[in-house]
Order: sequence, then C-alpha cells, then structure tokens
Amino acid sequence: MERIRAKYYIETPYELEKAAQVLAGEQSSGTFVEIPGETEELKSRFAARVESITPLETVTEPAIPGAKSPTGKYQRAMLEVSWSIENFGYNLPVLISTLQGNLYEITQFTGLKLMDIEFPESYSEAFKGPRFGIEGCRGLTQVYKRPLIGTIIKPSIGLSPEQTAELVKTLAEAGIDFIKDDELLSSSANSPFAKRVNAVMKVINDYADKTGKKVMYAFNISSEIDEMQRNYDKIVQSGGTCAMISLNSVGISAAKKICDNGALAIHGHRNGWGMMNRHPLLGIEFPAYQKLWRLAGVDQIHVNGIQNKFWESDDSVVRSIEACLKPMFGGFSVLPVVSSGQWGGQAPETFRRTQTVDLLYMAGGGIMGHPFGPTGGVKALHQAWEGAVEGLSVEQAAEKYLEFRKSVEKFGKK
Amino acid sequence: MERIRAKYYIETPYELEKAAQVLAGEQSSGTFVEIPGETEELKSRFAARVESITPLETVTEPAIPGAKSPTGKYQRAMLEVSWSIENFGYNLPVLISTLQGNLYEITQFTGLKLMDIEFPESYSEAFKGPRFGIEGCRGLTQVYKRPLIGTIIKPSIGLSPEQTAELVKTLAEAGIDFIKDDELLSSSANSPFAKRVNAVMKVINDYADKTGKKVMYAFNISSEIDEMQRNYDKIVQSGGTCAMISLNSVGISAAKKICDNGALAIHGHRNGWGMMNRHPLLGIEFPAYQKLWRLAGVDQIHVNGIQNKFWESDDSVVRSIEACLKPMFGGFSVLPVVSSGQWGGQAPETFRRTQTVDLLYMAGGGIMGHPFGPTGGVKALHQAWEGAVEGLSVEQAAEKYLEFRKSVEKFGKK
Repeated sequence: MERIRAKYYIETPYELEKAAQVLAGEQSSGTFVEIPGETEELKSRFAARVESITPLETVTEPAIPGAKSPTGKYQRAMLEVSWSIENFGYNLPVLISTLQGNLYEITQFTGLKLMDIEFPESYSEAFKGPRFGIEGCRGLTQVYKRPLIGTIIKPSIGLSPEQTAELVKTLAEAGIDFIKDDELLSSSANSPFAKRVNAVMKVINDYADKTGKKVMYAFNISSEIDEMQRNYDKIVQSGGTCAMISLNSVGISAAKKICDNGALAIHGHRNGWGMMNRHPLLGIEFPAYQKLWRLAGVDQIHVNGIQNKFWESDDSVVRSIEACLKPMFGGFSVLPVVSSGQWGGQAPETFRRTQTVDLLYMAGGGIMGHPFGPTGGVKALHQAWEGAVEGLSVEQAAEKYLEFRKSVEKFGKK
Repeated sequence: MERIRAKYYIETPYELEKAAQVLAGEQSSGTFVEIPGETEELKSRFAARVESITPLETVTEPAIPGAKSPTGKYQRAMLEVSWSIENFGYNLPVLISTLQGNLYEITQFTGLKLMDIEFPESYSEAFKGPRFGIEGCRGLTQVYKRPLIGTIIKPSIGLSPEQTAELVKTLAEAGIDFIKDDELLSSSANSPFAKRVNAVMKVINDYADKTGKKVMYAFNISSEIDEMQRNYDKIVQSGGTCAMISLNSVGISAAKKICDNGALAIHGHRNGWGMMNRHPLLGIEFPAYQKLWRLAGVDQIHVNGIQNKFWESDDSVVRSIEACLKPMFGGFSVLPVVSSGQWGGQAPETFRRTQTVDLLYMAGGGIMGHPFGPTGGVKALHQAWEGAVEGLSVEQAAEKYLEFRKSVEKFGKK
C-alpha cells in the first residue's frame, strides 16, 4: 500500500527514538486497545512508521517551551515518518491534521518543523493540480523567455474603481504583464468588487483589443465560499484571466473548490505565512507548504524575494523558488511569485542563484516611481532581467542600459 | 464609522512608535501615493490607527529572527491598532489577512502575537454565530447543571464501523453524553464515513428509542467542501446531532459554509493550534482565535485541559475557558471542550479556577480503563464533578465516592 512520508526537524529533551515513537503514536493508532484477533493487523495497516532518525546538534536551551531536560541537553534531529494512505485517502484536511495536527502540542518536543512531504504516485491522479502553472500563465500573458513583470495596486486600500482603472491604464500602456489587488482589499466601502472588475476589465479589454496584449489582473476574491464563487464568475464573465486567494486566510477546502473551476489562473498569496514559518523550529517550511497548495490547484505562489524588505534570508527565498520549480509527479507546475521590496536591482542575484526566468517578478515603487515614469520603470525591469541572463552585475547592467541605470541611481543602495 | 480593534504583544529593536507605524502602514494604506484632492480623506477613512502603546519589559535577545538592535536591547509592548470596517466589511478572510497577514513578516518586529480582537456591534447582525452553543448542546443531550461527559473513540484509526458501533453501544449503556471521532479519521480504508454513520447511528437511535437519551456523536466531516456537505447531510438524515471540523486544516471559509447549514452542532477541533500559539511571541492567543470561530458559527471548541498531557500551562487553559464563557454581543455562546489526559482528577482544580460546569469534559482511558468498566468510569466522572462543585479536594471526593476512588487509585499520581 502506498505511503506518505514526512520529514521533520525536531528538538527533544528525551531519547530520540522515544520521542519519535510518541509522535508516531499520537498521530495514528498509538494508544491501541486490544481488539480481539485484529490488533496486529490493524497496527501494521494504520500505524505511523518511524522511517529514519538522523541526529544533529545538541543545545542547552530549548527552542520553544516544553518538557525540561533531565540532562540539561536538548537533542536536535531530522526525523522521517510515514503513513499508509489507507488512513486518509485523498482527503487534504485530514492529511493536514495528520502531518500538522496535535504533534505541535507534544511536550516531548521543544521544537518541531515540517520540512518536506513526499506524496505517492496515485496523488497525481486523485488531484488535478494547477490548471495553468508556468506555461499556462505564459500563454495567458503571451510572455516567453523572461519573467512576467508585475505590480501591486497601491495604496493597498482606498482607491475607487475609477482610480484603480486609471492606474491600470497607465501600467498597461507602460507594458506591464501582470497587476494584482493588495491582499487587504477585496470589496471595500469605496471599491465594491464587481464595480472594480468592471472598471479594470474595461481598460484591460480595450487595451487588448487595440494591441493584442492582455494584462493579467489578479482580483482578490478571498471571502466566504459563495461570495468567492460569485466573484470568480464575475471575473470570468468580464474576460479576466486570474483570481487571487489569500491561502491561509481562506483555507484549503474552499481554495481547492475555487481552483477546481479551472477557468482562471489562481494567484496564491501566502500572507500569514510568517506565523507558521518565522521560528526556525516551529511550524512548516516552504518546500512542504507549496506542495499542499499545488495539490489544491494553485497556479502562482508567493516566495518573497532576494534582498526583501521582510525578515527572510536570501537562502530561504532561493530554496522556496527551487521548491516551486521542481516538478511534482513530472508536472503540477506552479509559478513562483517574487515580491517585497523588488525594483530590478535584485534580478542579477536572483538569476545567479536560481538560473531561472520562470518567475512572476513583482515591483511597486520601482515602476511607478521611475524617473522616466512607468514606461521607463517597466523597461528598466526588462533590462534588469536581460542583464541578469547575460551574466552582468548590477553595475554592468546599469552601464549598458539607460532606464535600468536610472533605477539604480534612484533605488539602489545609497 | 465602526472600527475593529486588535491588541498585539510585540517586541522590537526600534522605537515603539516607529515600529507601530510600520505595522499600521503595512496593514492598510501605508505607502500612500498622492491622489490629487483625495489623499487626506482616504487616509482618514482607510488607514489603520495606532490606538495605544504600553511599554513592557526590555530583553537582550530577540524572541524570533528579525532586525538586529542597534542598542542591543529589544523592547516589548502591548500595542492596540484599529481599522475601519469600511476596509473589509464582514469578509472574515480579508479581516484575517488584515489582522494576521504580512505583519508577521515585518523585520522591525522580533516578536508579534495577536492577543485579542474587539468587534463592533454590527458584526452581531452580519453573522449568525453558533446556532446551538452551550444551551443548544445541553438541549440536544438533555444534560443540565453539570459538564457534558464525553470520550474519543480509540484507537484513533483502524477500527471498522462495526467495532466502532460496538464501542459506542458500550459507552452509551455506560451513560456517556458525547463521543467523537479522532481528528485523524474521517473516511479510512476500513471505515468509510457513511458506513460508520450507519453503524453508529443505529446504536445511538436504538438506545435513544429505548431510554430517551440520545448520545451526541461528533462525526469528523473534515474534507473538501462538497464532501463535507455530503457527510453533513448524511449525519442529518441519520438522526445525528453533531459534526466535527478540524478548523485549521479545513479553513474558515469552508467551515463557515458548513456551520451556516444550522442543523447540527459543530464541534470545532483546533489541531494544528500549537504551530500558531506555542511560541510566546509569535502567532495568536486563544481569546482572539475563539472569537473568529464563534463568528463563523462553531458551537464547541477545544481548550485543552488542566494538567494536560501536552505542553500548555494551566494558566493558559484557564484563560481559554474564560474567553469562551465571556459572551460576545451578549450571546454567540460556545461550549469549551476540555480534553487531553483528563480522567476526572482534574475536575476539582478545573472548577476551583473557572467556577463553571458549562464544559464538555472529555476523558479517554479514565472511562474505558476504569476498574469497574465503562459504567464505573462514567459514574466516576459524574462524581468527580459533584465533588468539585461541592468544593471537595481530590482526596475528599475519593473518600466520599467509591467509583471516583477507584479512578484515583488507578489514574492518580503515583
């Protein structure tokens, strides 16, 4: 029978083998009462199995509150556990409760982070996965051989539909590929969802009629399920190509239901992620997280960015991009969304470390605030990526390309 | 215009006022570009407002990774921020993105925990809230003036529907009020959901016909939204009174949709909670968390238990119970579910500290493993609570009550 394997980074004041067995027990048939004649069969079918334990460093202070060490030492390790899919089948929420449920409460651990998950082959048939992914999003925007260049409407909240549409017009004419709502805005007092779609899609459709280029706009449909579906349908009817969902705020059951419609590329925003990831020994790492959302059918997912304005290290961002670009079951393609403090100056380093242009690269001020205006800003981003792929440094690219040089002068490190 | 207020426990290497403004900016209209003629009006309508900052202790090591302090000191504080409901209306996911979104990523904080939320009065009309709550769950089980006594089917996973039903029969005859599936089981290879409902409800309905007492069974419907709805309907058609949802695994959009059916009491399981709460300066505290789920319509919610087997302190459990018992808008009643390592010996302390019997008190081994069998186990729990309400200590209650004395001898601290 197929099994799902999960890898955890753990810390425990106890013996590793014992702590691992507590986890496996808590998350499956642990406290077996005797059922006449069947106990051993049940155990071998349904019990979680500790596959491997790799001891790592020991420390003298626990990472998070838990049992006190009798020896004063806390042992860290990488732990692999597996479950038969007979336990949960293809039920994502029950799978999540199994991999990320009560185990975070176990006092025998003073640190526990889910690092990665391996799914068996049959999951590729049970789930449709992303309907568009990298190639699909390229097809919808007609952008090839370079990152899609995107931006976020700012201010996050407060603009009327007409003001938003005016900005979209400016950005479309500047050559942008992608625009998104901020996650703080779905339907506000002065920008009701349907009115914003009407105003924005009129601009986008007109521009597409004129030029053949249809800007992808990710409208934030995050809401209760019925309203999400209504908003999704509104986008489809209006000729839009993308909907945005705040994954953690909406939850996987409703998000998957929306993804299953299959008519729009789904932009997966990961706001709230810091809560689950910021501590090095609590929560979940991105390689595991993004797999769950690919199963659910998300086409684009946020990975933060190199030299970002948030707390995350470049190494972590690189790992996230690499995780997205690694095929699942030879497919289930998802487009990494690079954002946070990006203006193009990070392109050389991003390319150097990831060797990919399969990105949605989002910049805010770097576009709207460019000395030559938004057209110059979009051009500077194209140049940044051309330079990056040519292997140029920021300085070399600035020398070669005028608009990018202006960006460096304005946005580069002083 | 009505506002929502949130209270955060923060830590920052910077000046408190500056850090607070970064949060307010990031989570609303912070990076305002100039929109001719409207900027000030927009700001005053949509900007988050820092309501108060209460400085607390300083420390020399950051709680979680973030910006390095130039002074070597990290200042903690309680911070209150408010938003106009014009920003998100009654959209729970967008509200969550506002209160618990990118703010966890801000490098200017080396600790951030959402402590509490205050909702304006109009939320009481926009949301139906729990349809049953404490009084409704008492009505469905006909249990008054004492806690509902419940148990969890163990082993968590592996039993057939017939074996489960057999256990339910034993427990019903022992006088139990409530039984639940484990969160690891919804539909497994050897216990498909519908078959389990059929087998279990036959026992429960037969017993109710005979005695007038209908045991409440919380079937775990956690799944994708369509399957959850089918499973919910199956329970209703079979005469069941309760469905269980793993809140964090399913997500709030789908959970609310199910709650809105209004035909079953919803048992809200919080597995995964440790990930969001275990670190003292990252995530969310239960008083805030349970309010969101009451808005969504959950009737029962897990609060762990006094002297539990997990990591959580008694103080924290008491705060959680108190949070549940505090009315929202004068109502929105939710029943706190006490579980984890409970066997009755914790009843005196639980009552002493909370002065309530409005609880669903869950015990496992304390019932099935009682020396007189399950009937003795249930009786011992009733006695434990009678003793608790009389103000007896564990020792005094053990002296007075035979079955409870046997529990103390078997399960009490050696």
